[in-house]
Amino acid sequence: MHDDRFARLPKPPYYAVIFSSLRRGDAADGYAEAATRMDELARVQPGFLGVESARDNEGFGITTAYFDSEASIKAWRGHDEHASARQRGRDAWYAQFAVRVAKVERAYEWECGNA
Amino acid sequence: MHDDRFARLPKPPYYAVIFSSLRRGDAADGYAEAATRMDELARVQPGFLGVESARDNEGFGITTAYFDSEASIKAWRGHDEHASARQRGRDAWYAQFAVRVAKVERAYEWECGNA
Repeated sequence: MHDDRFARLPKPPYYAVIFSSLRRGDAADGYAEAATRMDELARVQPGFLGVESARDNEGFGITTAYFDSEASIKAWRGHDEHASARQRGRDAWYAQFAVRVAKVERAYEWECGNA
Repeated sequence: MHDDRFARLPKPPYYAVIFSSLRRGDAADGYAEAATRMDELARVQPGFLGVESARDNEGFGITTAYFDSEASIKAWRGHDEHASARQRGRDAWYAQFAVRVAKVERAYEWECGNA
């Protein structure tokens, strides 16, 4: 009973982009649509492996996107529509964010009832 | 105006433990207290660098904890009280979780007004 909010990832090694962000209180329109579009677009990028995301009621969120290589991350970063969305993020949606790019070396999953 | 929900981290390299979890609908008592205690305890472990966490209204959450080395992660993993909390997590609190351990190679932060 794998929940779809968890990414189904291959065995490590692979890469993670950890994106932490705080939404602005006065957030402008277009955020939800852009977030959905970026999710759809990321999923069809070469080397994309999976994505997970959570945002709390205070507007703080963490998204982790997984790719097979640094090259795939760089290609996604260079995608025109993604670059444009990032600019709108700085201009309108976010008060603060942090990006960390990391190489996943080991991983472990657990599901209730599968122990 | 750095928001406290963002970890203040040194320059890479350092390590990330990415913990994704889905709470059970029938979650037992003691979770909030244990989560607070684990946060406090993690913060005083040798090599701890910072932690960020977000959980949405559907009970899906991501916590990223940062440490200076694999050795520090292993020591924290071996901490008695932490091991006991993980067992309670499997017994009572979580429907599913995933742990990925990764080496952060580069990082970038942005704050509105500091561009």
